[in-house]
Amino acid sequence: MVNRKYISDAVIRRLPRYYRYLGELLNNNVTRISSGELSRRMGLTASQVRQDLNHFGEFGQQGYGYHVEVLYQEVARILGIDQVHNIIIIGAGHLGQALVNYTNFEKRGFHVIAMFDIAPGIIGQTIGGRTVQSIENLEQYISENVVDIGVLTIPKAEAIHMANLLVECGVKGIWNFASIDLQLADPTVIVENVHLSDSLMRLSYKFSNQN
Amino acid sequence: MVNRKYISDAVIRRLPRYYRYLGELLNNNVTRISSGELSRRMGLTASQVRQDLNHFGEFGQQGYGYHVEVLYQEVARILGIDQVHNIIIIGAGHLGQALVNYTNFEKRGFHVIAMFDIAPGIIGQTIGGRTVQSIENLEQYISENVVDIGVLTIPKAEAIHMANLLVECGVKGIWNFASIDLQLADPTVIVENVHLSDSLMRLSYKFSNQN
Repeated sequence: MVNRKYISDAVIRRLPRYYRYLGELLNNNVTRISSGELSRRMGLTASQVRQDLNHFGEFGQQGYGYHVEVLYQEVARILGIDQVHNIIIIGAGHLGQALVNYTNFEKRGFHVIAMFDIAPGIIGQTIGGRTVQSIENLEQYISENVVDIGVLTIPKAEAIHMANLLVECGVKGIWNFASIDLQLADPTVIVENVHLSDSLMRLSYKFSNQN
Repeated sequence: MVNRKYISDAVIRRLPRYYRYLGELLNNNVTRISSGELSRRMGLTASQVRQDLNHFGEFGQQGYGYHVEVLYQEVARILGIDQVHNIIIIGAGHLGQALVNYTNFEKRGFHVIAMFDIAPGIIGQTIGGRTVQSIENLEQYISENVVDIGVLTIPKAEAIHMANLLVECGVKGIWNFASIDLQLADPTVIVENVHLSDSLMRLSYKFSNQN
């Protein structure tokens, strides 16, 4: 058991990348890799890779490097994706439909167990194998099923109300795509805000400032 | 004219958030704000806000704070979103459809001028007011229109080929949703990789490590 120290956001931000790169190495039957080679592929420095991974224990061996599969499994464990997480999606519009059909999530232990919407036209339709339910069923559904994470793919105006409703029902994680930074009163609820237009603005910034 | 110094990724990462928060203040008819109040709303420290904004010039006035609209316009200019950027979307699946219907992009100067796909079933359909074109028209379309940014909402296996094709056609920005870090040979091409499952893994991490 490793003593957990404070881990900076920057390190946490890189962990999924390690996971992806290690997964790709495994797919290409690479069994071991040096910190130098791993860092080169990821566009980091070797010392940064060593520092990052040292937060979580001693994985590398002098003169051998990293055992790819062991490190891959360990990063998965650290990220908590060796566990199954049950997800419900609120909002069966295009983005909700894109997410329910995204096979990468299933591979990483995220199971979409239900979708909800408010629009009569879409309730009852089957999307990615799930029948869209009326939002009116939400509270009952959560009381009868284990729901870890609620995904909000709904307009900003409804996001705060819906997030609070999920929290009242006992949901402990919110993955929010509405263009608002959700700030909830309950600090035990984990919120991850995704702002797609922030990403586009960063692209615009780099575009405008490259010369 | 401000002398551009090196600006860290962390600052660039926060700029779109400033833009969003300032926009919200404007919508609520707030005309000026202190760095303390702005930082409180954004969950930053006042000195961080002052440092961030000082990278770009002297906006605040002692005892007055920031003029919200002036700062908003200035952040927009810094981000380059006071310019119009023409976007094409490659991949008219659910995610492509979600993006073309996302009105926030239009508001920020990003105009989706065309969509392309490979599937005969979707070519010719009208989505968000645009007729989906065959990918075979791509090169000709780019030669006849100003295309700033290509958005890839296609599978990973095709992303590298398609990115290279866009670059050969002269496109200078790629917004990539395929689950691969695109690394292009041409350093003048700006790439922004979006990994939705990275975000979900960060949520999972916080979920697993909160206690």
